[in-house]
Amino acid sequence: MEPRPGDVVAPAATAAIATDAVVIGAGPVGLFQVFELGLLDIRAHVIDALPHIGGQPVELYPDKPIYDIPGLPFCTGQGLADALLRQSAPFAPQFHLGQTVNQVHAQEDGQWLVGTSTGTQFLSKTVFIAAGVGAFEPRRIKLAGIEAHEGTQLRYHLGAPSAFAGQDVLIQGDSDTAIEAALSLSATGPHRANSVTLVHRRDSFKAEPERVALMRERCAAGAMRFIAGQITGHDTQDGRLRAVHLTRPDGNEQAVPLDTMLVLQGLSPQLGPLTDWGLAMERKQLVVNTETFSTSAPGIFAVGDINTYPGKRKLLVCGFHECTLAAYGAAPIVHPTRPVLLQYTTTSTHLHQVLGVGHGTGDKSRDKS
Amino acid sequence: MEPRPGDVVAPAATAAIATDAVVIGAGPVGLFQVFELGLLDIRAHVIDALPHIGGQPVELYPDKPIYDIPGLPFCTGQGLADALLRQSAPFAPQFHLGQTVNQVHAQEDGQWLVGTSTGTQFLSKTVFIAAGVGAFEPRRIKLAGIEAHEGTQLRYHLGAPSAFAGQDVLIQGDSDTAIEAALSLSATGPHRANSVTLVHRRDSFKAEPERVALMRERCAAGAMRFIAGQITGHDTQDGRLRAVHLTRPDGNEQAVPLDTMLVLQGLSPQLGPLTDWGLAMERKQLVVNTETFSTSAPGIFAVGDINTYPGKRKLLVCGFHECTLAAYGAAPIVHPTRPVLLQYTTTSTHLHQVLGVGHGTGDKSRDKS
Repeated sequence: MEPRPGDVVAPAATAAIATDAVVIGAGPVGLFQVFELGLLDIRAHVIDALPHIGGQPVELYPDKPIYDIPGLPFCTGQGLADALLRQSAPFAPQFHLGQTVNQVHAQEDGQWLVGTSTGTQFLSKTVFIAAGVGAFEPRRIKLAGIEAHEGTQLRYHLGAPSAFAGQDVLIQGDSDTAIEAALSLSATGPHRANSVTLVHRRDSFKAEPERVALMRERCAAGAMRFIAGQITGHDTQDGRLRAVHLTRPDGNEQAVPLDTMLVLQGLSPQLGPLTDWGLAMERKQLVVNTETFSTSAPGIFAVGDINTYPGKRKLLVCGFHECTLAAYGAAPIVHPTRPVLLQYTTTSTHLHQVLGVGHGTGDKSRDKS
Repeated sequence: MEPRPGDVVAPAATAAIATDAVVIGAGPVGLFQVFELGLLDIRAHVIDALPHIGGQPVELYPDKPIYDIPGLPFCTGQGLADALLRQSAPFAPQFHLGQTVNQVHAQEDGQWLVGTSTGTQFLSKTVFIAAGVGAFEPRRIKLAGIEAHEGTQLRYHLGAPSAFAGQDVLIQGDSDTAIEAALSLSATGPHRANSVTLVHRRDSFKAEPERVALMRERCAAGAMRFIAGQITGHDTQDGRLRAVHLTRPDGNEQAVPLDTMLVLQGLSPQLGPLTDWGLAMERKQLVVNTETFSTSAPGIFAVGDINTYPGKRKLLVCGFHECTLAAYGAAPIVHPTRPVLLQYTTTSTHLHQVLGVGHGTGDKSRDKS
């Protein structure tokens, strides 16, 4: 049986990274968590399942407008993530991307052992779960037996286009990501694929029209092709995936030989192992108190869309508040002998120093931010 | 005895303004309250004691940096207020400035009668107290009998400099506001005062050094004078204030004849009548629940620095969260027959319409902000 948070599990032989705080999730709330922790002299390591910083807004709507961040009448998902990254930069967070947390275990001294899917381990005084709706995992293709090829001929991330040089590549999907991958692999150059076939169940795309138009030009020029059809079967020979079978909209079947199959049909959030950590949950959300946003385990906090409490609304403006109070909740754990002071970034010379914004004004008036 | 919130007091004969919401306080949290109410189709009137929008940040540190607004690595008090005003603009809030709320009384139909110091009255379904540390009132000079001249020869606001043309004016204070007033009244022009005397207890100022240097130049040019000294007495003759007596740092006394005395020694927050409205309070803060930020009176919410609850920190990031949940708390009161939906500004075509940002994308993916 898997150990639970109440159990004590020793770190692996390889040294775990010792830290004050581990933040799970590099989305907007996780980034602001780093900032608020930094103001209280708590440094953090940040883990995210995605290969980039910015979480859901960057993954799902990097260019779309957001209108309800206080003091930002307009921003995009990417713009917001960039600003929050810049804001947290004075505290030099260390990011561990493209990995999911698969273990969180209590230590005898009250610390937490946090381990990820790539084997990274942390020994941390506090843990902040800012995981949104969960770790974003690629939506898998459902076809009996095809999972045997995952990681070799079946891929869910583009990665470096050069890895596909000279190959027959089939790309499945209709998103901007899928079409961008087709354009990238079929572009003239030394790493060009031998052939690129884009497959989607119908000749209609959710990608931006401009990008779709580029793809159609590329098809017209003979550099790639698009086939409307569902993938309904596959041929495997000597353990190798040789072709997939498409069922076209008119009901006819077509086999498409391939070396590599790149499935880009979006990401789906997965709570994953988080549900096994023994934390109190309600309807797949972590139950927290509204004083410190602590979960049922001391030292583990939950902020943003992953938590629940009376009145909860899944809005960034709420997540920012939650991670602020969570930082204050963590301060006595990380710095047990120090009083927790509320200082204002406008007037505190100490905060000016840690933010690297030069000399404080020495003004002791009751300014606030 | 003054009526209390539980009592029913009829509006005055003059028509009260009928509205869904009255927001008390035009500071950052009050402005974002207007925005969050607007997203839920609730329009608001805003009252503030100060003659300008922006509250404490604009009054106390318009040019000073703020570093801890999420997604705004840097802004000033004025810049933040401007951005929040722009953000709330689609909802066309109506501002009633330079007046304090002096009555809040329940009506039989569950609405609230709100009256201000200038006689404006509102009949509102909901009230949001976003009054920070209270209404900012000018710090009065403490000198027996001098209050008899307030509003005539003793003033606490500069107002239009032309009102001082040809007069002997004494200005007390060492702030930027005080020195700026001295520079303004002593400037060459048709409305110049006959004489301008700046008085502060010592020859040292909390105003910006550049502004102090300008003042000293003006003194050297003979256009005004500065006297270090405390105001310890005054001469009144035939009901008119004739002169004040200064006690200089060396102990000597000096009489300064004057027509008008302008006391600019800063603002002091006053909770004022708010403490008489019968709302539950703790240590001069309004007690709220953390689900809707309602006070003990149904329909009256308290957000920002004026409220208290377990874990409360007086930070803008918290006030923004509080007014967001308060808006959701108010929605069933204002629109009792409508379900309260959480919509995202990134994807909701309805919100795009009310924000005036053109056509929605129709994208139904679970975007968020």
